[in-house]
Amino acid sequence: MSATSSLVPIADGSVTSPQGFTAGAAAAGLKTGGALDVALLVSDSSCAAAGVFTRNAVRAAPVLYDQDLLGERPGRIRAVAMNARVANACTGADGLAAARAMAQAAEQAAGLPPRTALVLSTGVIGVPLPVEQVGEGLRQAAARLSAAGGAEAARAIMTTDTRPKHCAVRIESPAGPITVGGIAKGAGMIHPDMATLLGVLTTDAHLEPATLAPLLRRVADHTFNAISVDGDTSTNDTVLFLANGASGVEPGRDGATAKLFEEAVHHVARTLALAIVRDGEGATKFVEIQVVGAPTEAAAREVGRAIARSALVKTALYGGDPNWGRVLAAAGAAGVALEPERLALLVAREDGDWLALAEGGATASPEPARARAIFEQNAIRLRLDLGLGRAEAMVWTCDLSPDYVQINAEYTS
Amino acid sequence: MSATSSLVPIADGSVTSPQGFTAGAAAAGLKTGGALDVALLVSDSSCAAAGVFTRNAVRAAPVLYDQDLLGERPGRIRAVAMNARVANACTGADGLAAARAMAQAAEQAAGLPPRTALVLSTGVIGVPLPVEQVGEGLRQAAARLSAAGGAEAARAIMTTDTRPKHCAVRIESPAGPITVGGIAKGAGMIHPDMATLLGVLTTDAHLEPATLAPLLRRVADHTFNAISVDGDTSTNDTVLFLANGASGVEPGRDGATAKLFEEAVHHVARTLALAIVRDGEGATKFVEIQVVGAPTEAAAREVGRAIARSALVKTALYGGDPNWGRVLAAAGAAGVALEPERLALLVAREDGDWLALAEGGATASPEPARARAIFEQNAIRLRLDLGLGRAEAMVWTCDLSPDYVQINAEYTS
Repeated sequence: MSATSSLVPIADGSVTSPQGFTAGAAAAGLKTGGALDVALLVSDSSCAAAGVFTRNAVRAAPVLYDQDLLGERPGRIRAVAMNARVANACTGADGLAAARAMAQAAEQAAGLPPRTALVLSTGVIGVPLPVEQVGEGLRQAAARLSAAGGAEAARAIMTTDTRPKHCAVRIESPAGPITVGGIAKGAGMIHPDMATLLGVLTTDAHLEPATLAPLLRRVADHTFNAISVDGDTSTNDTVLFLANGASGVEPGRDGATAKLFEEAVHHVARTLALAIVRDGEGATKFVEIQVVGAPTEAAAREVGRAIARSALVKTALYGGDPNWGRVLAAAGAAGVALEPERLALLVAREDGDWLALAEGGATASPEPARARAIFEQNAIRLRLDLGLGRAEAMVWTCDLSPDYVQINAEYTS
Repeated sequence: MSATSSLVPIADGSVTSPQGFTAGAAAAGLKTGGALDVALLVSDSSCAAAGVFTRNAVRAAPVLYDQDLLGERPGRIRAVAMNARVANACTGADGLAAARAMAQAAEQAAGLPPRTALVLSTGVIGVPLPVEQVGEGLRQAAARLSAAGGAEAARAIMTTDTRPKHCAVRIESPAGPITVGGIAKGAGMIHPDMATLLGVLTTDAHLEPATLAPLLRRVADHTFNAISVDGDTSTNDTVLFLANGASGVEPGRDGATAKLFEEAVHHVARTLALAIVRDGEGATKFVEIQVVGAPTEAAAREVGRAIARSALVKTALYGGDPNWGRVLAAAGAAGVALEPERLALLVAREDGDWLALAEGGATASPEPARARAIFEQNAIRLRLDLGLGRAEAMVWTCDLSPDYVQINAEYTS
C-alpha cells in the first residue's frame, strides 16, 4: 500500500495539474447532442513518454501508430490527440492512414513538429474514422488549450462512462515539488463495444524514457491490469505516461524521492482504475479480491483474475449469495497448481474483521445469515489464502447484473 | 463429420441399449417433491473403463475416487453409482470417505465384488453427502434394475436441466452388431452451482482399457470439451466410458470397424453435448463456431473457445446484433498468434450460403439489415478463417441472457 500521507491530493486534479501541460476539448459531432468527443493534450516542452498497450492480437490502428512512434522517438513527445465514439479498430491500412492523419492534424493545430503527437481512439470497432471531422475538432480543441483543460479532456473521452475520471497528487521532494496527474475512461467487462480502457498520466518530473517505461509497466500491473478483465481485452486498451521535466526535479537522483515518486504514480493510477470499476454500468457492487499465501506474485494475480472474471462468482455477488464454493472452483480453474486442502477463504465483516467461509478446502460453517448479511453490502472484500507461500496480489472487480446483459445486447452500429 | 449413414439411431436409446447393461433410479429425498435423484448402472460382466475428468485444481471427492479406481482396476468395472443435488466437492477427507461409502453401498446393493463401482455426484459445493440417504436410494435403484432403466437414470442426474439427455446408436460390423449408448447432464456457463457436466457412455463392444482411454479422450475433445466452457470449469466434470464386450465383437480387429466404432462413439457424445448446449437455462440461441485456416487444431480450438466464452460476443448474440468486431476482438485475445489482416469472418445465411462480415481484418460492408436478419435466427453458424494454415475446429455455445444472470444470482444454499 502507498504511504499516502506524503501525497497531497489536488482538488479537481488531472493531466494538466503538472506544470507545462495544457489541454482542450471540442464537440466534433461524433457523439450526438453536441457532447465533447475530441480532446488534445499538449506539453510546452518535449516529454519522455511510455505506453502500455493491449495484448490482444487484433490491435487497433492508434495502438500500432503509438507503438511505432514510441519506439522511434520516446524522448520527443509533445501531445496526445484523443477521440471517442469510433475506435479505428479492424479498419486495415486505411485505418492506419487515418491514425497518422489524426496525429498530423493535432501537430498542425498545436504548432508542433511532425511525429510528436500520440493518438488514442475509443468507440465502435470496424467503422472508419471520420478524419475531417476529428481534424476540425482538434483545431477547435487547440484553440481552447488551457491549464484547466484536463477535466474537459476526461469528459471528451467518455463513452458509456457515467462520470469523467481524473485526479492528481503533489509530492514534496528535497529538490522541490513534483506533480503527477491522470485521466481515464471505462473498460473491460463493463462497457460494450466501447470496452476500451484509455488512460493518460502526466508529470512535471524529469525522467529518461528508459526509466519511465519499466516504471509504467510496474504501476499498470498493480492498477489498470488488476481491475476486472473478462477475456474481452479490447483492441484499443492503452495507458500513456508523459514526463516533461518542467518541475526541474529528477526523482531518479535519490532513492527516497524515486520511491515517493513511484508511490505518487501508483496512487494516481490506482485512483483512476478503481473509479473505472465503480462506474461499471449495470454494476451494483465493488469487489476487492486479495490472494495471499501464493508461491509467486504472478500465480496470485492469475488466481485473482480467474475469480474476478468468473460469471458464476459475479452473479453470486450480484445476488448477495455467500456462495464460497464458486470462488474456490474459479480459483481451481486458474491454471495454477493449488493444494485444495490448504485453501482458506475469508470475507471482511462490516467491522473490518474477517469471517472464515472455508478452511482446509472445506466449509468453515459460518452462520449462513451472518455471511449473507456481509455479501449484501455494496462493497465486498474477499481474501483467499492459498497456503503455499508468501506472495500476494490484489484484484478489483464488480458484479454481473441483468442490466449488464441488456446494455450489451443493444444494437450498437 | 461422421459418416452417419452407417449409424442406426435407437429410439429412446441410452446407456442400457448396449447388451448386458441395466439401470435403475430412485428418489432418495435429496431433491424435493419425490423426484428421482439417485441412479445405478450395472454391467452383467466386467468392463474395460476409462474417464475424462475436470482439469480444475479443486477436484471433487468422486473425481478423486474414480481416478484412483480407474488407475488400479481399469478392466474390472461393473457399475456406476450417481446422485444429484449434492456435489460432494470441497468436503475434505470426510468427502472422500463418503464417496467410498457410496461406492460400497452400490456394490453391496447390486451384489458386486468390492472396488468395482465408480461414483458420480453433482449439485451444491461444500455440503456433506448424506451417505445414509444415498445408500438407501441405491438399494431401491438396485431393486429396479432393468434394460429399460437408462432413461430413468438420465432423469435422476438432472439438476437444472429441463430435459433428460440420452441416446444410442447401432452399427453393423462384419463380425456382428455393436451398440453405443450414453446419458449426460448439463454443464458450464449455463448452470449455476450445479454447473457440472456428467456423462456416461456404454458399449457392448470388446475393447482393452489401453484402447478405450485414448479413444474417449479423442472423442471428448471434439464433443464434450467443444461446448461452451466459460472458465467456470466445474469441480466435478466427468465423462465415463464402459465397454463390457457382451456383443462379442472386437472393433479393434479390423481398421474399417475400428473407424466405424469411433464414429458411433463420436455421434453419441456429440448428440449429448449439443443437447446440453440447447438446454441452457436462459439461453435463447444455439451457436456453432467454426474456426478454419488455423496453423494447428489446438490453435483453432483455443480461438473457438475464446469466442464462445466472450461475454461481449454472447450478449451481442442474445441481442441479435451482427457485431462482428467483438468476434475478432475475442479471437485476438485467445493467446494465439494471429495476423489480423488475414482474418475473414462469415455467417451462414438462411439458405446455407455464407455472408462475409469481415475480410482482411476489416469490414466487408454487408448490408446491415441483411446481417441483422441472420443474427436474429435461433441458430447461428459463424466461420472464422485465420488464413494461417489448414487446421480447423468446431465449438458450440449458446447466448448470454438476463435470465442467466437471474438464475445464477439466486440463493442456492
